Amino acid sequence: MTKEAAFPPPADKAGLEDGTIFTPNFDAHGLLPVVATSAETGEVLMLAYMNAEALARTIETGEAHYWSRSRGELWRKGETSGNTQRVVELRTDCDQDAIWMKVEMEGDGTACHTGHRSCFYREVPVGGSAAVGLPLTVVAGDKTQGS
Amino acid sequence: MTKEAAFPPPADKAGLEDGTIFTPNFDAHGLLPVVATSAETGEVLMLAYMNAEALARTIETGEAHYWSRSRGELWRKGETSGNTQRVVELRTDCDQDAIWMKVEMEGDGTACHTGHRSCFYREVPVGGSAAVGLPLTVVAGDKTQGS
Repeated sequence: MTKEAAFPPPADKAGLEDGTIFTPNFDAHGLLPVVATSAETGEVLMLAYMNAEALARTIETGEAHYWSRSRGELWRKGETSGNTQRVVELRTDCDQDAIWMKVEMEGDGTACHTGHRSCFYREVPVGGSAAVGLPLTVVAGDKTQGS
Repeated sequence: MTKEAAFPPPADKAGLEDGTIFTPNFDAHGLLPVVATSAETGEVLMLAYMNAEALARTIETGEAHYWSRSRGELWRKGETSGNTQRVVELRTDCDQDAIWMKVEMEGDGTACHTGHRSCFYREVPVGGSAAVGLPLTVVAGDKTQGS
């Protein structure tokens, strides 16, 4: 944990909801879920996690940093792919345990490691029984890279 | 757990990413994070969680159901406030451990229990030091109800 990751401790319920100071409420693993949407199209690009250090670096640099749960390390988005995310706006929610960021994709505009523009490239049908395996439909026009 | 909540077990990595069958990958607590956006404006309304039963009911009824972590119970969104959410589209992400739903708000259009249209009603400044308490700014025009 770096010095700059020392956010104030979470306030009580009233302070979290109505307070004017950011006191992020990390979970038992020290993480917050983060929704990144395209500042251009509004599309949800990905859902990932930040620890205090990733959040502090994101705020200080204006570039999205996450905590990789699979690799167990700080992850500057795009550090290998070049598909970085410039933060246009960052918001917290009512109980300060989630983040919404509007980002501009740099590089080739691909947010997902599978080559899709968004990680949410498949639709689940709504309205029928959920008891059997539901067929997924790839959202047309989503892929920016060959597979 | 109701019968209809029996989703197929998660596939392997390739099956999760490229498969054509929905095999949601719940976390150790049996939950998935869900991003609800406004089908009309694209705005992120809330981030909440579903267990298998909430997900099955959402799919089968087309109305958003969540798992309330604070109350420890299934929660049909809007059952007390009337501010229900009709699901217009439901997507899963690359590793099938998160959901994006586009919803139409019913009732008075308020998604957040604080009376704001969206739970994400406060902006955190980006670009300065994160070492001190950062001031939150309420996003103008967001409140739909008096406080």
